[in-house]
Amino acid sequence: MSILSRGARLSPAISRRIRRTPYTSRAISSGASEFTVVNHTLLPKAYRKTVAEDYWHLKTRVQIWDVGCQRQVEIAGPDASRLVQWMTPRDISAARIGDCLYLPVIDRDAGMVNDPILLKLEEDRYWLSIADSDLLLFALGLAQASDMNVRVAEPDVSPLAIQGPLSSEVASAVFGDSVRGLERFKFGAFEFRGTSQIVARTGYSSQDGFEVFLDRGSLGEMLWDAVFEVGRPLEIAPGCPNLIDRIEAGLISYGNEVTRENNPLEAGLGRFCSLDRDIRCLGMPALRILARRGIRRRIRGIVFGRGSMPPSDGSLEVFAADADDRRVGTIASAAYSPSLERNVGLAMMEKPFWEAGESVVVRTGDGQFEHGEISELPIK
Amino acid sequence: MSILSRGARLSPAISRRIRRTPYTSRAISSGASEFTVVNHTLLPKAYRKTVAEDYWHLKTRVQIWDVGCQRQVEIAGPDASRLVQWMTPRDISAARIGDCLYLPVIDRDAGMVNDPILLKLEEDRYWLSIADSDLLLFALGLAQASDMNVRVAEPDVSPLAIQGPLSSEVASAVFGDSVRGLERFKFGAFEFRGTSQIVARTGYSSQDGFEVFLDRGSLGEMLWDAVFEVGRPLEIAPGCPNLIDRIEAGLISYGNEVTRENNPLEAGLGRFCSLDRDIRCLGMPALRILARRGIRRRIRGIVFGRGSMPPSDGSLEVFAADADDRRVGTIASAAYSPSLERNVGLAMMEKPFWEAGESVVVRTGDGQFEHGEISELPIK
Repeated sequence: MSILSRGARLSPAISRRIRRTPYTSRAISSGASEFTVVNHTLLPKAYRKTVAEDYWHLKTRVQIWDVGCQRQVEIAGPDASRLVQWMTPRDISAARIGDCLYLPVIDRDAGMVNDPILLKLEEDRYWLSIADSDLLLFALGLAQASDMNVRVAEPDVSPLAIQGPLSSEVASAVFGDSVRGLERFKFGAFEFRGTSQIVARTGYSSQDGFEVFLDRGSLGEMLWDAVFEVGRPLEIAPGCPNLIDRIEAGLISYGNEVTRENNPLEAGLGRFCSLDRDIRCLGMPALRILARRGIRRRIRGIVFGRGSMPPSDGSLEVFAADADDRRVGTIASAAYSPSLERNVGLAMMEKPFWEAGESVVVRTGDGQFEHGEISELPIK
Repeated sequence: MSILSRGARLSPAISRRIRRTPYTSRAISSGASEFTVVNHTLLPKAYRKTVAEDYWHLKTRVQIWDVGCQRQVEIAGPDASRLVQWMTPRDISAARIGDCLYLPVIDRDAGMVNDPILLKLEEDRYWLSIADSDLLLFALGLAQASDMNVRVAEPDVSPLAIQGPLSSEVASAVFGDSVRGLERFKFGAFEFRGTSQIVARTGYSSQDGFEVFLDRGSLGEMLWDAVFEVGRPLEIAPGCPNLIDRIEAGLISYGNEVTRENNPLEAGLGRFCSLDRDIRCLGMPALRILARRGIRRRIRGIVFGRGSMPPSDGSLEVFAADADDRRVGTIASAAYSPSLERNVGLAMMEKPFWEAGESVVVRTGDGQFEHGEISELPIK
């Protein structure tokens, strides 16, 4: 239940514990009607459209997203590479300046702590663009306890995302034609109003897209307006991470489908674990043991029911098709997909019920039972 | 702007990233109309009453608060005392089982990471009842990097607070008369429905009060109902941390008045820093240097203006009375106090403008200027 709306009443209480972004004022004036909180920061959750309308728009046009809540943990100094590698089982040794790497961050027991995008800014300077946990405090604890020569800080950087098939039209109009040449998961420095800003070909959607890592809040409204203005002929609309799209794409949301109780293999991130490389990662010994033993559950797609799902305020349970008293999985995120005309979800499924095509039964929010099938990710 | 209300629409989206507490359902059925998010968990922010009505009720009757968002970081094992002491400049060596200690947690630069209540459960087992930051990740980083023999975990413990002058009437009716004997900042084990539960004489208000550290979510609604039932003749009402009361009492809110940019001396927590003791605390060397040099700003009370404050979505600025172009402080939290009939706030004031009685000028949310005076904490 992340049902947190701005509401009509602005309380006279002032608070900075839950932070605004440089774009919050524009999000509100553009019609943001609900917000949630990520990294102690507001994230618009809905504008005037429904999630389904938003989904179609995202798949066909272009959107502007206030994702200033994707805070950056900057790790800089002589031991920066060592500290980053210590936190992740993905080998970062081949990363070059300008690369973005999606990576699991794990603790010594191989429990997931976060799943950020790493930006390699310089040989000894990185940003971790984080999901919803205070990864800065984990990095700080590791670095300070082991007396590493490294600085860990949260800079004044607030990403703005441009997402959708027409996003390169918009990005090139703001940052120049050369931004079209950026490959997926690469970033470069581009000029904006006399400043140099990092723009990456990344984003939390299945579509083409860019993220602008604006490095000074004071330019936020100017950037929003510039993007909006050039996007107007392309029917740009304000948007936010779309639940239907991210489920179909298999993009996990830390805290939802995956927590510290899960390891990256369960999270479906095995391809980002360099188990055979000789790297110094805190959780690698534990992860290798888990890999050898074999995991007992993992994230899968699930497609179930027909017609729009009733509201639910918790996880949905998944049962074996042939023995419906046996729970074999849990759906942490689900939505009705208007393109598949079925409900889709991300399910943590027990072995062996995780095989694609497996028939299961889902208990939905109103206590009804619906047939479903397990699917690969992304869901097609 | 922590204006996050439940709203009329329950989205069909299910999410567990923002967690419910065992009491959320009861808070909603009791009329909670707005929630905020603390530690990835819902905290009711308003019921049917105004903050001022709530304030008078808290000061004269008794309230039940869903503070399940005060998550516990459990630190247990042979190195538990060593790890806790490493994180705080407050000497914990004299603490006994049954003691609650309010303490600053700091990093190596003496920056505030959290300000929890420590509960000493056993000689080698503690809970840190935390404010809004992932202190677990900091403790985990420190412990795992230094290979301490300690377990760091978040148990299934969700505090429920009973606050107000009549709270001992209610607590004793639920837990037996012996609970009245608990001294302030002590806890004990008390029976509830055949289980043993920790009850402490603590709470985030200026009033008498108790916190029940319920150790299994499944009993949450039963506990809420039991407290509500015995409190009914005493006019118990659902409530939440009261902004006016906490400002007057000088209770800081981590993330609001104090962040990692501040050290505990600036936060007004010097009395919880055992600077002269021979303790092994990570941030003590930095803290001693800061203490020797002298700090340049610190938290103070401020009383300003008359009549109810207009809404504001950010901090208020404080200027010198004799040179109103010189900013000498910032008010992160403010509210109208119906007992003082003036606005009260917690201000980070620069030296030497922090002296009690200092005249200053405050720019309020609507751009008006109001005269004010600096005050000791608590504000009287």
